[in-house]
Amino acid sequence: MLGEEELPLVSSASAESDGNDMTAVEQLRSQVAATWDAAIKHRFVDELLAGTIADDVLGGYLAQDYQFFIYFLNEIGQALASADTLEAKIRLGQQIGFVTNDEDAYFQLAFDKLGVPAAEQRNPALKPATQGFAELITRVVETRDYKQIILLLYVAETLYLDWAKRSAAEGLRPPRPEHYGWIDVHEGEQFRNWVSFLESEVNRVADPADPALQALIRDAVQLEWQFFEDAYTA
Amino acid sequence: MLGEEELPLVSSASAESDGNDMTAVEQLRSQVAATWDAAIKHRFVDELLAGTIADDVLGGYLAQDYQFFIYFLNEIGQALASADTLEAKIRLGQQIGFVTNDEDAYFQLAFDKLGVPAAEQRNPALKPATQGFAELITRVVETRDYKQIILLLYVAETLYLDWAKRSAAEGLRPPRPEHYGWIDVHEGEQFRNWVSFLESEVNRVADPADPALQALIRDAVQLEWQFFEDAYTA
Repeated sequence: MLGEEELPLVSSASAESDGNDMTAVEQLRSQVAATWDAAIKHRFVDELLAGTIADDVLGGYLAQDYQFFIYFLNEIGQALASADTLEAKIRLGQQIGFVTNDEDAYFQLAFDKLGVPAAEQRNPALKPATQGFAELITRVVETRDYKQIILLLYVAETLYLDWAKRSAAEGLRPPRPEHYGWIDVHEGEQFRNWVSFLESEVNRVADPADPALQALIRDAVQLEWQFFEDAYTA
Repeated sequence: MLGEEELPLVSSASAESDGNDMTAVEQLRSQVAATWDAAIKHRFVDELLAGTIADDVLGGYLAQDYQFFIYFLNEIGQALASADTLEAKIRLGQQIGFVTNDEDAYFQLAFDKLGVPAAEQRNPALKPATQGFAELITRVVETRDYKQIILLLYVAETLYLDWAKRSAAEGLRPPRPEHYGWIDVHEGEQFRNWVSFLESEVNRVADPADPALQALIRDAVQLEWQFFEDAYTA
């Protein structure tokens, strides 16, 4: 297997038991560290935090992101259906309740302030990373395999927390609500708690030597970076 | 097909378009009307509404029902993942949030008042209808077929609303909270709204001439009746 040469000490999902100090999450992320770092330090994030991002860049990006909501619901619903413990199902269910009650408010405010046309809000032409992510999520959901589903959720949510944390760490908070609102959605107590749950679930169920999981995290992080890139293409 | 001889006029999911005045739900329920009626008028319901039900009967029944929570979460999570519209996903997500935040309170009160031992609360020997329902839900979830999943949810929830409605209709309200609490969980605005959504979804997606759906509603209603019967066996 591909992973065995790169990570010769890893032979089980339990990092503690084999003398390796790295958790499963840390081992999986170590393979994609450069791309992850490039994503959270992308020009898009720099300009958002500085409040200098062009309205059409942010508006177009949000229209693409809004298309993910339905795929995200598919993914988190399948996580609930496929999770192997009641505790995980309850936590996933609470998050599902949270996002189906509250998530939309920021998008409506931002679409309005940024002047995104109704047609683009509802039915934008999908850019390459959006299309790629939709296909990746659909493929993973169809496996009904909790460890793949939870890893994909972990990557998407944690990478967003990681760039959003730059706001406080670097003392950068843009004045416009359509700017700081997108930071606030991905920061704060509720979102950190959710990301922390996802990390503990990946550590609980994932074998970092599993080639399928290694390929999945590579594809997902690459698409996250590409999604920011796409914001600058027509 | 079995259904075609019984319901010769039904040829599509849209009851309005073929001159038949019955909705898909009404047609599907018409096949199981006698068993449905026997379930909602079962001795168990009579005794619960009258407040005369034996503590060990209600306690044992609730211990069996509590085992369904995990299967119910699997089912509603799969409904969310498999639903074909964003509107349905959002409504299912809100219900998931509701049940993962609130559902447990009644069970804890009732187990306490009825003196159900901790071992029976957590790990009861499953009775035949409990086992049968768990298998039916698992089979339906694995199809990832929204129309089957939503029909199964519809049956379980609506049959419970139907017996609970007898309380107001017949002016029967038992004084003990472990009795009226089980009625209140299945009555009231929130639950009626949820059942109404399920009915409209079945009408939207189900073809009442589909033999798979006809078999599913028969199996499900039979198991609901059997589940009440099992409350009186050791």
